[in-house]
Amino acid sequence: MSVKLIVLKLGGSVITDKKKLSTPNLEAIERMADEISQAKVSSLILVHGGGSFGHQVAKQYNLAEGYRDPSQVIGFSETHRAMTKLNILVMEALINHNINAIVVQPSSCVVTKAGRIQSIELKPMKKMLNMGLVPVLYGDAVLDSEKGFAILSGDQLVASLAINFGASRIIMGGDVDGLYTADPKSGCSAKLVQRVTLEDLKNQKHEIKGSKATDVTGGMLGKMRELIPAIEQNIQTLIVNATKPLRVYKAIKGEEVIGTIIEKG
Amino acid sequence: MSVKLIVLKLGGSVITDKKKLSTPNLEAIERMADEISQAKVSSLILVHGGGSFGHQVAKQYNLAEGYRDPSQVIGFSETHRAMTKLNILVMEALINHNINAIVVQPSSCVVTKAGRIQSIELKPMKKMLNMGLVPVLYGDAVLDSEKGFAILSGDQLVASLAINFGASRIIMGGDVDGLYTADPKSGCSAKLVQRVTLEDLKNQKHEIKGSKATDVTGGMLGKMRELIPAIEQNIQTLIVNATKPLRVYKAIKGEEVIGTIIEKG
Repeated sequence: MSVKLIVLKLGGSVITDKKKLSTPNLEAIERMADEISQAKVSSLILVHGGGSFGHQVAKQYNLAEGYRDPSQVIGFSETHRAMTKLNILVMEALINHNINAIVVQPSSCVVTKAGRIQSIELKPMKKMLNMGLVPVLYGDAVLDSEKGFAILSGDQLVASLAINFGASRIIMGGDVDGLYTADPKSGCSAKLVQRVTLEDLKNQKHEIKGSKATDVTGGMLGKMRELIPAIEQNIQTLIVNATKPLRVYKAIKGEEVIGTIIEKG
Repeated sequence: MSVKLIVLKLGGSVITDKKKLSTPNLEAIERMADEISQAKVSSLILVHGGGSFGHQVAKQYNLAEGYRDPSQVIGFSETHRAMTKLNILVMEALINHNINAIVVQPSSCVVTKAGRIQSIELKPMKKMLNMGLVPVLYGDAVLDSEKGFAILSGDQLVASLAINFGASRIIMGGDVDGLYTADPKSGCSAKLVQRVTLEDLKNQKHEIKGSKATDVTGGMLGKMRELIPAIEQNIQTLIVNATKPLRVYKAIKGEEVIGTIIEKG
């Protein structure tokens, strides 16, 4: 696959209002489509989160815990329906910006085992990339060979796709500027880390985990755990704040941008 | 797989207004969801056509002819977007009728070769069926290993899925009552054929093809060609008029219904 492939993640916190049920942030979706279009990337896979769409329905039916009783089955349908509604808005914006976007529904090509990807059908996606199409995936409720159901996070997908297609870079677009030395809301001592190696990150793990800012570092730690296998394959990973204009654009272009670069080291 | 699996096709002529661009027949979609729900089938795969949604966009970009130039790539995106819009309406209706429906996007799990299914990822669908979910697929623009793109008809999908999952029956819900001895619009001599063997059908092929009613027999002949491999596997195939109330319901229930049964013989 192309050495220039970029896997871009747009967090649910960017494209939805996480505080309000099933509420898209249409302005952000529109801006993201515009930035991606302007950056004219040659080979791209886009993965987006569920934000206020998927998570709440999935939680209502306890899908993450796996299959327990038949009443959950309609919850699987409803979770996917919710994610589809969000995805359609993303697809609309991308296509309207002349991006050759094509959705790839994770639940139709991935099976997990205890929540981890067990099999993923790559043939159609490989052909899409060769054809100049931009596959768009998202966090999804999927079938699990041990638990019945599982929630497949966009982050796990990002790492798997980046490794399988030999991506050159991963860009994680979230709602924070990057990794901090401490909770940025806790005081003036918090500094954005511009560049970090995997080893640095592993050594700092406990310290980061100990922070009170679960939104920032807790969420980030989870993301980091998912991305480690990709970073270990020498895929440079960049965390940027996608809620701020032009950060994603600059990240795609490879221009200097506020954020944290994580490398194998 | 369950011996009672039914693969049900709902033609684009049933769920859309084929004469008007991207116009769903919401009443028909609602009625179909109701009939399927009432019939309480234990194991079902649903495949729907594109009608006035997919076909016209696909035609505009000549997708069926395969990849010729880069300007078609956005047409692939747009064709899929159009099919998604129709599919969402079908999914809404099914889920609102408490059917555990889950869409399976053909372009994310099928690759064709010169328009014929070359590979199809079945693992997620198998687990969906085991879980009591109803996979819903549709005719779709897909990636083709020879031509670049192809249009995968719902009919080809029906036969492939029925064979792969060992379905007991195929129900083809279209806008005609079944197969006729002659063009039903041509005169009073046309009779509905209630039961026909594959051999009967093959022998009558030229006669049927010669009919002037391309809507009826031309369309039907194409369908029949796609379904022959499934019928040869002893999967009973029933053609019913889904535009008429309760035909699909009765067909699912296995009750007596106006239509044509095709058997291996």
